[in-house]
Amino acid sequence: MAEFTLYCFGESGNSYKPALMLQFTGLDWQAKFVDFFNGETRTPAYREMINEMGEAPVLIHGDRKFSQSGVILDYLAEVSGKFGHTNDEERREILRWMLFDNHKFTGSIASLRFLISIAKTGETATTDWLRKRALGALAVVDGHLANNSFIIGKRPTIADFSLCGYLYYGEELPFDLNQFKHVQKWLDTIRNLEGWKHPYNLMPRKR
Amino acid sequence: MAEFTLYCFGESGNSYKPALMLQFTGLDWQAKFVDFFNGETRTPAYREMINEMGEAPVLIHGDRKFSQSGVILDYLAEVSGKFGHTNDEERREILRWMLFDNHKFTGSIASLRFLISIAKTGETATTDWLRKRALGALAVVDGHLANNSFIIGKRPTIADFSLCGYLYYGEELPFDLNQFKHVQKWLDTIRNLEGWKHPYNLMPRKR
Repeated sequence: MAEFTLYCFGESGNSYKPALMLQFTGLDWQAKFVDFFNGETRTPAYREMINEMGEAPVLIHGDRKFSQSGVILDYLAEVSGKFGHTNDEERREILRWMLFDNHKFTGSIASLRFLISIAKTGETATTDWLRKRALGALAVVDGHLANNSFIIGKRPTIADFSLCGYLYYGEELPFDLNQFKHVQKWLDTIRNLEGWKHPYNLMPRKR
Repeated sequence: MAEFTLYCFGESGNSYKPALMLQFTGLDWQAKFVDFFNGETRTPAYREMINEMGEAPVLIHGDRKFSQSGVILDYLAEVSGKFGHTNDEERREILRWMLFDNHKFTGSIASLRFLISIAKTGETATTDWLRKRALGALAVVDGHLANNSFIIGKRPTIADFSLCGYLYYGEELPFDLNQFKHVQKWLDTIRNLEGWKHPYNLMPRKR
């Protein structure tokens, strides 16, 4: 058995965030499939035993259990000694961008992609509203990356792996990423880091 | 001039989170009005000088500047020595709930209340979708509080002040809080802490 087990599923960009981190740190890990689309995260058993928040990902390390991708990233940075902060100012800067990611960035991009490409609702007032938020959040990150190779400066950290989590799903993304040149360049750089894999090559999916 | 300045406005529950913390810690602070409804946060000047993310709140302390309510709460816990973690496990538990707040809880409640009670869109497919998410997130917190007086156990922390930020707006909330008994009791407990004030009595509003 691997040292780390990640409850995850291929379509989950939030699961992809720690999966990428596990790859980049070279830790010994295995994926455990969560059958989200058949309601597994909403079952009382999952909520009691795995995650009261009813979400993936969840990381198991020995007898310890962690949920929320940001917490898992923070923990993996600590145990691996990689991609974390080196001082308190960096710690806050990473936290600032991870909160922005959870609230505005992934918060809109993940929902928009789910409605359009998975639930296939078609274009609705809800997707219009979400797209406006997603594009606004992308513009903020694009502007920031115009002056920084990575989110907190010159080296990749867990803030990068948090923000990029939903952006490698290609045609499932219901907007044109080409308008965000700095985001594109940054995604290419991360894609070239040792260990990178596409989400569908890294995490199991329902057949 | 006060030691701390908080860029904020009365309608912003995200601003209310650090405003409450400043009250509860007894720090010397003043509010600086952000004219959100006339677009101040979207101006190039605000984005360049105050916050590239185009949001309130922002905290100024001497020559230091912090954005994202979760970062501000974390900083204020550190400088005051109050309402923060006492060990690494608590630190992660606080982070876990602050991320859940930003993504799922405030992420849906704030948008729903904005559309219904401020933009006055009426009930739409978007508000239906947001209400479902908001009620689901409220049920998670209610279930958690059934077994805990506060979010991480027996004492209030910044995780509580983050999650409660939008719940004191009374009739502006477009759902019935009465169905969440444990949330209600927890809100009453926080309301009775020394220094508590309603958001509209704590932060300036446009006349």
